[in-house]
Amino acid sequence: MGTSSAPGVRIRDLAPEDLDRGLLDSLDALRPASGADPGAVRRAYGEIRANPNHVVAVAIHDSRVVGTAALLVERKFIHGGGLAGHIEDVAVSAGHQGARIGTMLVEYLLDVARRRGCYRTTLDCEEGLVGFYTRMGFERRGVHMRVDHR
Amino acid sequence: MGTSSAPGVRIRDLAPEDLDRGLLDSLDALRPASGADPGAVRRAYGEIRANPNHVVAVAIHDSRVVGTAALLVERKFIHGGGLAGHIEDVAVSAGHQGARIGTMLVEYLLDVARRRGCYRTTLDCEEGLVGFYTRMGFERRGVHMRVDHR
Repeated sequence: MGTSSAPGVRIRDLAPEDLDRGLLDSLDALRPASGADPGAVRRAYGEIRANPNHVVAVAIHDSRVVGTAALLVERKFIHGGGLAGHIEDVAVSAGHQGARIGTMLVEYLLDVARRRGCYRTTLDCEEGLVGFYTRMGFERRGVHMRVDHR
Repeated sequence: MGTSSAPGVRIRDLAPEDLDRGLLDSLDALRPASGADPGAVRRAYGEIRANPNHVVAVAIHDSRVVGTAALLVERKFIHGGGLAGHIEDVAVSAGHQGARIGTMLVEYLLDVARRRGCYRTTLDCEEGLVGFYTRMGFERRGVHMRVDHR
């Protein structure tokens, strides 16, 4: 791990200027996001930034955001009051897929989780991505289920 | 939903006194927890309580904790800066399984998520519990994967 790279791409924590440099466009690969109300997005940014248990990584290429992924750190009662990491919303811009940027983003967040002392990190994915995450060291552990609220 | 109940069992938010009333014993059903260092458990409680995005529910019977489940609320950039709920660590004490306490706990947290404005709530489970959660309105959405940190 940690040896993947895409030429000219750098991974770092989200910074305020990224909101205007393509963050939402990169999320469009996951779910339409770029049409969101700018005020709501700034409020979301403020709340995420104020939460020390929420880390958002971005992939930067030519000063633009071309990918993003998030890590939630959860304090548990189990595991002796240990920490668990949750990776969410891994997205790479349409024009940059296949360039190992997704791998770089996930490896970056796994490193954050490890340095913070998490005993494990989990994520949920479509069946078609199981091989991708297996190559990064993940193992299939169960079923992801969802209920929508109306 | 919301109509399940077990006689004499009440669901409420975790309170400080629950740490000495069987919280860790109820988590033993999930993973050995009751042998944990009491100081670490109190520190975990302090941190969880201070986090407004982390809700722990307990099932109380005869003044004892007989079950627990947690909800993490995550602010997203997608969904217009919306909120997503994550249910974690649903556990019912060995002597109380089959009494609908798990259903009560999950319904309680779904209600919290709904009232907070979450657009969806997810959880991960073993294949054998898919039917249980389907009856509560959850749908299978993907694969849960995990990596352990050493």
